[in-house]
Amino acid sequence: MAVTEWLSQIKWDKNGLIPAIAQDYKTGKILMMAWMNQEALALTAEQGHAVYWSRSRQKLWHKGESSGHQQQIKAIRLDCDSDVIILQVEQKGGIACHTGRESCFFRKLTKQGDKWTWQTTEPVLKDPDTIYQKAINKDNQ
Amino acid sequence: MAVTEWLSQIKWDKNGLIPAIAQDYKTGKILMMAWMNQEALALTAEQGHAVYWSRSRQKLWHKGESSGHQQQIKAIRLDCDSDVIILQVEQKGGIACHTGRESCFFRKLTKQGDKWTWQTTEPVLKDPDTIYQKAINKDNQ
Repeated sequence: MAVTEWLSQIKWDKNGLIPAIAQDYKTGKILMMAWMNQEALALTAEQGHAVYWSRSRQKLWHKGESSGHQQQIKAIRLDCDSDVIILQVEQKGGIACHTGRESCFFRKLTKQGDKWTWQTTEPVLKDPDTIYQKAINKDNQ
Repeated sequence: MAVTEWLSQIKWDKNGLIPAIAQDYKTGKILMMAWMNQEALALTAEQGHAVYWSRSRQKLWHKGESSGHQQQIKAIRLDCDSDVIILQVEQKGGIACHTGRESCFFRKLTKQGDKWTWQTTEPVLKDPDTIYQKAINKDNQ
């Protein structure tokens, strides 16, 4: 893949990655953060839906390929240091998180007495088993 | 510093850091992303305004200490993998970026013909020289 100018302007980290924050383009809600390499970002721009780099699986991760929960790109933004990306997206199915919630950021730091705890504040919209089972059936068709 | 339970639940990276996304608590606008170590996050929770870890200067960075542009914490959120934080903040002075803009994400990927470029889409609200000059004067008083 030839590296074009807009890709070379990005400050990739030593692993060749950049953090990408996905945000609902209408509400501003932050859905998730994942990582991209050059190929993932180029594909995201070309195809119009989010493609990440999975650090755990060490391969491209076409978001929604098994769940159907694609993220359609409305805008891609770059920060002043050129080392963080925002994707403003339309979240298909209204669920970004593998737990079946709209957003991955479903825990809020809460003080009870003098003790801080992470409290879950967002509901599961769909059973994760259902999400991925459906996807498997679909793939088998 | 004793590590309390809520801090030990976070998956710090191999440098002991976590990315922290600062977002306007009212509009949902993403202002910036920076990094925190345990001490920075503990101080942020205790003091109620954002303290980051500067990777370039390798020291705590009390956001707003020279510019006056503090970020007052309204909520702190953690994602499903426990490796990214959101700070929902009230941005003092309405400027988060060192370039004098509200947000660091002031460039948008734009296609002109068949060429992608990063276009600046947000105005400078205050000359950065003025921001930091004022801060120096204030410190000298």
